[in-house]
Amino acid sequence: MGNTFGSLFRITTWGESHGGGLGVVVDGCPPGLPLSEAEVQVELDRRRPGQSDISTQRKESDAVTIVSGLFEGRTLGTPIAMLIPNRDARPEAYAEMRTTYRPSHADFTYDAKFGRRNHEGGGRSSARETAGRVAAGAIARKILREVAAVEIAAYVVRIQDIEMPPMDDMPSREAVEATAVRCPHPDTAEQMIARIKEIRGQGDSIGGVITCRVRNLPPGLGEPVFDRLEADLAKAMLSLPATKGFEIGSGFAGTRLTGSAHNDIFEMRDGRVRTRSNCSGGVQGGIANGEEVYFNVAFKPTATILQKQPTVTSSGQPAELIGRGRHDPCVVPRAVPIVEAMTALVLVDHWMRHHAQTGTFTFQEK
Amino acid sequence: MGNTFGSLFRITTWGESHGGGLGVVVDGCPPGLPLSEAEVQVELDRRRPGQSDISTQRKESDAVTIVSGLFEGRTLGTPIAMLIPNRDARPEAYAEMRTTYRPSHADFTYDAKFGRRNHEGGGRSSARETAGRVAAGAIARKILREVAAVEIAAYVVRIQDIEMPPMDDMPSREAVEATAVRCPHPDTAEQMIARIKEIRGQGDSIGGVITCRVRNLPPGLGEPVFDRLEADLAKAMLSLPATKGFEIGSGFAGTRLTGSAHNDIFEMRDGRVRTRSNCSGGVQGGIANGEEVYFNVAFKPTATILQKQPTVTSSGQPAELIGRGRHDPCVVPRAVPIVEAMTALVLVDHWMRHHAQTGTFTFQEK
Amino acid sequence: MGNTFGSLFRITTWGESHGGGLGVVVDGCPPGLPLSEAEVQVELDRRRPGQSDISTQRKESDAVTIVSGLFEGRTLGTPIAMLIPNRDARPEAYAEMRTTYRPSHADFTYDAKFGRRNHEGGGRSSARETAGRVAAGAIARKILREVAAVEIAAYVVRIQDIEMPPMDDMPSREAVEATAVRCPHPDTAEQMIARIKEIRGQGDSIGGVITCRVRNLPPGLGEPVFDRLEADLAKAMLSLPATKGFEIGSGFAGTRLTGSAHNDIFEMRDGRVRTRSNCSGGVQGGIANGEEVYFNVAFKPTATILQKQPTVTSSGQPAELIGRGRHDPCVVPRAVPIVEAMTALVLVDHWMRHHAQTGTFTFQEK
Amino acid sequence: MGNTFGSLFRITTWGESHGGGLGVVVDGCPPGLPLSEAEVQVELDRRRPGQSDISTQRKESDAVTIVSGLFEGRTLGTPIAMLIPNRDARPEAYAEMRTTYRPSHADFTYDAKFGRRNHEGGGRSSARETAGRVAAGAIARKILREVAAVEIAAYVVRIQDIEMPPMDDMPSREAVEATAVRCPHPDTAEQMIARIKEIRGQGDSIGGVITCRVRNLPPGLGEPVFDRLEADLAKAMLSLPATKGFEIGSGFAGTRLTGSAHNDIFEMRDGRVRTRSNCSGGVQGGIANGEEVYFNVAFKPTATILQKQPTVTSSGQPAELIGRGRHDPCVVPRAVPIVEAMTALVLVDHWMRHHAQTGTFTFQEK
Repeated sequence: MGNTFGSLFRITTWGESHGGGLGVVVDGCPPGLPLSEAEVQVELDRRRPGQSDISTQRKESDAVTIVSGLFEGRTLGTPIAMLIPNRDARPEAYAEMRTTYRPSHADFTYDAKFGRRNHEGGGRSSARETAGRVAAGAIARKILREVAAVEIAAYVVRIQDIEMPPMDDMPSREAVEATAVRCPHPDTAEQMIARIKEIRGQGDSIGGVITCRVRNLPPGLGEPVFDRLEADLAKAMLSLPATKGFEIGSGFAGTRLTGSAHNDIFEMRDGRVRTRSNCSGGVQGGIANGEEVYFNVAFKPTATILQKQPTVTSSGQPAELIGRGRHDPCVVPRAVPIVEAMTALVLVDHWMRHHAQTGTFTFQEK
Repeated sequence: MGNTFGSLFRITTWGESHGGGLGVVVDGCPPGLPLSEAEVQVELDRRRPGQSDISTQRKESDAVTIVSGLFEGRTLGTPIAMLIPNRDARPEAYAEMRTTYRPSHADFTYDAKFGRRNHEGGGRSSARETAGRVAAGAIARKILREVAAVEIAAYVVRIQDIEMPPMDDMPSREAVEATAVRCPHPDTAEQMIARIKEIRGQGDSIGGVITCRVRNLPPGLGEPVFDRLEADLAKAMLSLPATKGFEIGSGFAGTRLTGSAHNDIFEMRDGRVRTRSNCSGGVQGGIANGEEVYFNVAFKPTATILQKQPTVTSSGQPAELIGRGRHDPCVVPRAVPIVEAMTALVLVDHWMRHHAQTGTFTFQEK
Repeated sequence: MGNTFGSLFRITTWGESHGGGLGVVVDGCPPGLPLSEAEVQVELDRRRPGQSDISTQRKESDAVTIVSGLFEGRTLGTPIAMLIPNRDARPEAYAEMRTTYRPSHADFTYDAKFGRRNHEGGGRSSARETAGRVAAGAIARKILREVAAVEIAAYVVRIQDIEMPPMDDMPSREAVEATAVRCPHPDTAEQMIARIKEIRGQGDSIGGVITCRVRNLPPGLGEPVFDRLEADLAKAMLSLPATKGFEIGSGFAGTRLTGSAHNDIFEMRDGRVRTRSNCSGGVQGGIANGEEVYFNVAFKPTATILQKQPTVTSSGQPAELIGRGRHDPCVVPRAVPIVEAMTALVLVDHWMRHHAQTGTFTFQEK
Repeated sequence: MGNTFGSLFRITTWGESHGGGLGVVVDGCPPGLPLSEAEVQVELDRRRPGQSDISTQRKESDAVTIVSGLFEGRTLGTPIAMLIPNRDARPEAYAEMRTTYRPSHADFTYDAKFGRRNHEGGGRSSARETAGRVAAGAIARKILREVAAVEIAAYVVRIQDIEMPPMDDMPSREAVEATAVRCPHPDTAEQMIARIKEIRGQGDSIGGVITCRVRNLPPGLGEPVFDRLEADLAKAMLSLPATKGFEIGSGFAGTRLTGSAHNDIFEMRDGRVRTRSNCSGGVQGGIANGEEVYFNVAFKPTATILQKQPTVTSSGQPAELIGRGRHDPCVVPRAVPIVEAMTALVLVDHWMRHHAQTGTFTFQEK
């Protein structure tokens, strides 16, 4: 269970790291959207393994095929199924993992839950699953751009303790993609890359933090109470492999302020209601207020390391493991397009929910 | 929309701060659970206003009536409707708010979304809505205790910059309830209370952090991919008023570690698979591993302050507002039972989902 | 489980026949709809017991209170909770049913499912539960009238073997309400009433068929594949107590025709695409085509009869039962407003779903 | 929207008649179920085109590939994706349908809804979509057999006005499959086949009725109120292409009986509570009572006929159409495995829902 995300713009992913491949079905996409496989591939290429010298060397082109829901270059309004084959699978590299639990991986918990698992490359628990999310997210982003010029930019702000300075403006896609680490501050990026290579050389791994920013979101998106915009964003982010935290607006640091320092004062600006500061992170009462939405996501260090670690087997025997599968010493750079994809999926779903309740009804004046 | 939480153990809350009252319908509760209004009231009393000299002075007994789903002291398996009347409403105190937007409140965004709102006491956006969650959570907690001795304890670990030292053992309910601030470390609690009173004296407000810990959760609970246990907990927490962040296990701090320091080594202990450390926070791959689940929730300073603040009206005119409604200078202490309630709701729902897929099927050996 | 209906315009009913009362929460109602308790009461009065000399003599005013979601005469867009107290409960009349299973009632199956039940008046399985549906349906009908002048009319076309002749035009509310049996053909109505009284005199019961017709439904409502308009209508109708069948358009009789006789030929009429005949019942491929939607619902004879019947007790002992609770000798007339309510609920939900996917998106031409 | 069915055992189908192919994702399947492609193929072969001389001559092997969720011959508990390619597509045969609406098809309504459609072979509205349902249903049937020996048998009881006599015992799979028309009464089957060929010779089409019967269903399955077993079965059946009606138990005919004739008397038999008659169709109050569940489904005559029919184009011009695509003169025989598949899907979903609420909880006695 739990392989579907969204209520109206709804995606279902499937597939394991090794085996036939991966995919996603998108249900609820509006009809008439111009769409091509190439547009989806652009985002998948940002996520795929082997894209740089600081990512895993597994060679997967992650070439997507759109099998349904598209006709003569436009979406039909029917389900869009997308397939991504596994090509560079090496199941033999995972033989040990059939019975031995990798520390801080999901091997033990999958066994505990299901009584069995596909141990090859982590099976369903592999981050390869996120390819389907990125493919679906590419469609969501296009919708947002077309209907409201909504822009989403995620980027790496910290690797271990190397942190870039705050950035006033949202960085361009080009600035983010300029370096393999996806930090738009070149000097910091250089240090981050050096650190990742250093850690890789030690057979170890590191984590970091991604910031995601959203502009041009119309005020009113988001639902009160349980399905607040920030609640759905938090769920989306914590549903990603390796994430351990989420904070929006002033976040954990904001808990140290007083209300008088933290409150965002309203004023008229640009002909509409704006706030002077943005500790709220663009959301008040679960609903977008038209300011920039921004949030941070914490990624733990990669669990796979090339050092010998003690562990146990499924029958409870002591064992030792040393990482052999190809892996990323730091997943954060490749997580950038995934964070953007999940954000886009949340926003389109809320767009549809909002308009379903408020957009098509006009009632008489008394 | 968005007033329902959970998929199998499903609650729907309703009601506004002022007006007829508040309530909740719980659908999916197992039949046969012994239950009384008194058991629910215990939790509501921990949330209700006016409970201490550091909380709002609104006088609400929050007396609950169970109207359906209960028969001769046991649940029927049919929906449990619970009602909580509003008694000490003072709509006249909110006259200004009809047209003037309180900074960092949801007045503007509700108007932007719905084109109208009940301005009395914040209407639906009032934290009073959480009374329904606490009532439902009381049932969820009882189920967890009965079926698996699952224990949940939340407590205040930081108010502004006053932080209690780490605590090895889960605190008892008595230790948490011993002080009005719900911090189980008496010295720290004293400082926190002093700070809250000082800030209140300045007409200002503060925030803080709550830690929540869960013991005895059976390995296997939680769903892979989108409905990970931590994803649903994150959503639950970010759906609470005034929350700005969530972190589980090592959280944001863990992003500074290397993988070799962060990985939780498996070993056999107490006759079962255990981990030596618990950076994972009891969850791996979205599924409980049988260790303690623990997480932090960030609460911003209360938006209502007793200082004059500039703002605008719904027609875009500049205005000034000074808080007049009764309010908490710090919402964190009263949020403790709410955090516990939401946690219990997530866990019962996952318990049911897990057993639905795995609990009742036995297939032949080949 | 299963006490919620609808995906976007979503209702949750609760309550038992005896006990605190009944109610419903409506989530997803558009904001700004003018609404009063009196408008809801009109529909409840059509369903309530004791309304005529051919219905049960239980005296319930079914007076509704709207407790939330309404402010200054308009809906807020937040959940609308409605309460209906039980007043004329006579639990003592049901003492026997604590242990003895009434034939063709749900006493045994509730015990089989839940291991317990509220035996008073059938508890949750009582048709009294439908009061909540009717209250919610009153809101749905008003929305449909306001946004698209959609008209819904249900009426009794057959009681046992007494059938009214086909009717070209949709009957007015007045014509339907003119007789206690809610058959708009006066001569037939008279015979039906006489038959019901005759059967009641025998301590027996009868069933019949209701036709429901919907006009002015915009082409395009309805979802392909699983959530076809007719599929959701069928589910809505079979979710009503005592229903055994549903047919739309040509229904079971249409299976005897050839395709050449059955096909609905398209033509231009009134400036839009119309069909000459309407065997399709206004729905093609699950989607409304703009013609009248019409369907039939079969209601079995009331299970409660005033004759001695053999049965068994919950401990498996043979027993005899004779109906004592107040009941309807024929439920069909009182089911008319319930059929309309469920129809309205399905249509508003589909309206919102349709517009969510197609209504707010405009994509550039290539 | 609307391409997902089920709440816990949940399927999502995708694909169009022409184009890349069709498929289904099954989420929520219990882990450990032995499963092979061959078992799924058996059911698909019963649905596929070209299987007999009374079905369409489109040549599709409908060969299924299970791409995920299966490992070493057992289900993993993760999503099962199944693909079925389109091989014998002839899009050129449908050129006319790009602009011209086929009577009683979904061409016009898809245009009305989505503003566009894939006109080749009916696109998403083609009954080819049901291949995904049958593949998923094969898994559901296997689960039911393994856990409770639940047997499902559907068969054709009437073609146009040719009706088989009532059958006391549930027919075997062999008896149903013995003839191309899937009527287990050989003499009637012969007449039905002759009639279908005769009608085909006239370039016309016919419909009929399928009965479906379910044995060994444990008492207690089914949810009260909205998600009654019969309500979900009705929805499942009316979600099938060409269906116009559903009746369970005594159905429409039962509305002519009195309560004293219709009531199912309880008695002890075989050591458990049984009913003497079964007008209820195995369901009381929405919940299975352990008797045979049986229901009828009405299928209209195929809309595609080989006769010239007037119609209009998408621009509102008068036109004529004569069916050219390969099609079935009577869809009823091929619908038999589809009815069984949908029944199995409903039952497994209810099995899981029932056990989620009641199966894993044991509460202390007071």
